Amino acid sequence: MLGTMLYGPRDVRCEEVPEPRILKPTDAIIRLAAACICGSDLWPYRGLNEITSPLAMGHEYCGVVEEIGDAVTTVRPGQFVVGSFCLSDNTCPHCRFGFQSSCEQREFMTGAQARYARVPLADGTLVATPEIPEDDLIPSLLATSDVLGTGWYAADAARVQSGSTVVVVGDGAVGLMGVLAANQMGAGRIIAMSGHKTRQNLAIEFGATDIVSERGDAGVAQVRALTGNIGADAVLECVGLEESMRQAINCARPGAMVGYVGVPHGVNLDGQAMFFSQVGMLGGPAPVRRFLPYLMDLVLERRINPGKVFDLTLPLVDVAEGYRAMDERRAIKTMLRV
Amino acid sequence: MLGTMLYGPRDVRCEEVPEPRILKPTDAIIRLAAACICGSDLWPYRGLNEITSPLAMGHEYCGVVEEIGDAVTTVRPGQFVVGSFCLSDNTCPHCRFGFQSSCEQREFMTGAQARYARVPLADGTLVATPEIPEDDLIPSLLATSDVLGTGWYAADAARVQSGSTVVVVGDGAVGLMGVLAANQMGAGRIIAMSGHKTRQNLAIEFGATDIVSERGDAGVAQVRALTGNIGADAVLECVGLEESMRQAINCARPGAMVGYVGVPHGVNLDGQAMFFSQVGMLGGPAPVRRFLPYLMDLVLERRINPGKVFDLTLPLVDVAEGYRAMDERRAIKTMLRV
Repeated sequence: MLGTMLYGPRDVRCEEVPEPRILKPTDAIIRLAAACICGSDLWPYRGLNEITSPLAMGHEYCGVVEEIGDAVTTVRPGQFVVGSFCLSDNTCPHCRFGFQSSCEQREFMTGAQARYARVPLADGTLVATPEIPEDDLIPSLLATSDVLGTGWYAADAARVQSGSTVVVVGDGAVGLMGVLAANQMGAGRIIAMSGHKTRQNLAIEFGATDIVSERGDAGVAQVRALTGNIGADAVLECVGLEESMRQAINCARPGAMVGYVGVPHGVNLDGQAMFFSQVGMLGGPAPVRRFLPYLMDLVLERRINPGKVFDLTLPLVDVAEGYRAMDERRAIKTMLRV
Repeated sequence: MLGTMLYGPRDVRCEEVPEPRILKPTDAIIRLAAACICGSDLWPYRGLNEITSPLAMGHEYCGVVEEIGDAVTTVRPGQFVVGSFCLSDNTCPHCRFGFQSSCEQREFMTGAQARYARVPLADGTLVATPEIPEDDLIPSLLATSDVLGTGWYAADAARVQSGSTVVVVGDGAVGLMGVLAANQMGAGRIIAMSGHKTRQNLAIEFGATDIVSERGDAGVAQVRALTGNIGADAVLECVGLEESMRQAINCARPGAMVGYVGVPHGVNLDGQAMFFSQVGMLGGPAPVRRFLPYLMDLVLERRINPGKVFDLTLPLVDVAEGYRAMDERRAIKTMLRV
């Protein structure tokens, strides 16, 4: 079958790979309905993580169950399923606390930019739809697997509440999903920080009430001006760089929370500065599994359309162009027909 | 009158100082019922903060109002009052959000290790009791001004809830008050980390269910063992050093919050490590004013006895010995008769 392998910086290839097989009784094999490229795939693509052996890329997925291991009881072949990019047993203490992304058995999904994929810990990870969804819902269901779930977690970790004033730092796909999430949670005001017209427009479509196009200190000053010099009640940090983190903290009012979901690269926080800012922080890989049933329902009821975040669709064989388009910010997020 | 001045490292003196006067119409002058020494007074005492000119020491206070400025309306001469060590107007947006310690007009109290003290922003800062309290309640009322309010905030920031498993890092007066606070909030289990017998005993008296006497990695291993390798739901960091902060984070389960109230000295946090620990953080100077009416009621109703944290009482003239006793950990907290 066709799959996607990363060999080194900017060397990603669609090539023939072995079909996945059941390796453990808790595995399932799914036939993907569609695949996509994640912003976090760009870290190794750009050479920021060392690649010691070729990586099977792709961790966002939805599709039809082909085969299950002997121990799998909650899904069966023929069902349409979505799963989190974090694989979890959904029974350990951390899972029960709603932090499935820190499951005692946690693994990270791989190999989903392909025709078929193996999903370990299928019982704890996969959620089936009542019936096979209509085709036009596939992009939005695929989005729940990671990008929407991650934006949602950012808003949850930032404790967005009804009426909150929210700032979203980062206009990538996750940031845009953060806007959607804050809107669904009833935020009174959503300030999206973005300097790109197409992303600003999408942010507004997802519920942003204000756009700040400046970054850094100038952007913070704009947010302060918009909030009567108070700062935001909740800030979603969806980038993971030192500058964006500083921007996020400086946009927050004392007592606010920053929900941070961009994997931090080179971010160091000074304890004393954090203390006197009195801004709270909660981040980490998103426990998408906690939110998944609810988010899938929102999609199936057509109450949200997160699939709009895909602004480029390519056949799987052109996956390399999909990476390039995102790397060069020509595309927000690339969907792959498999 | 007699007051306390810090001239340099370990050079603290009780000496004749001018009586405070009303300087602004929002000031009040109070006659202190008692004074005390704070753990945070030891930072400049030990030379960790540079002293460019002599400091008027003391920021915890309760007593009788002597005089008020023309603009003061909520307290009047003759009333017994307690105030927070953070002076606040209690009307600005940050105050209304319950973060009075980040008040737009915030000042820090000074000069309260004395007979009389000036309290700026009296209306927003002071809370009067219905009548003059009995003498034996003075230590506990004095404790609400900072040490109890700070321990309480640590528990609040760590989101201690009914049934929570709580770890308290630090067996100073604030940590012991954190134990009391967690107990009042209904924590199911309170693990106090302390290697000192007298402090362990006081922790147990305040509600600790378990004592861990090891520190660092050994202490963390003990907490893990006590919690079935899960970690705590809420951790109170009441020290402010790199080692204690690391210990606090490592005791927390994913999704837990660390409430940190020790002013961080030399604490640096690695963003990526924080991310993957999935431990949240909220700290800062405690917004004692938020909790003060409730805490004063608990004391007046004799439901709590935080004044037990004072294990040394000296006349004000012996203030230097009070500092020495705390510096050498011979005393947990020193009360001063003024």
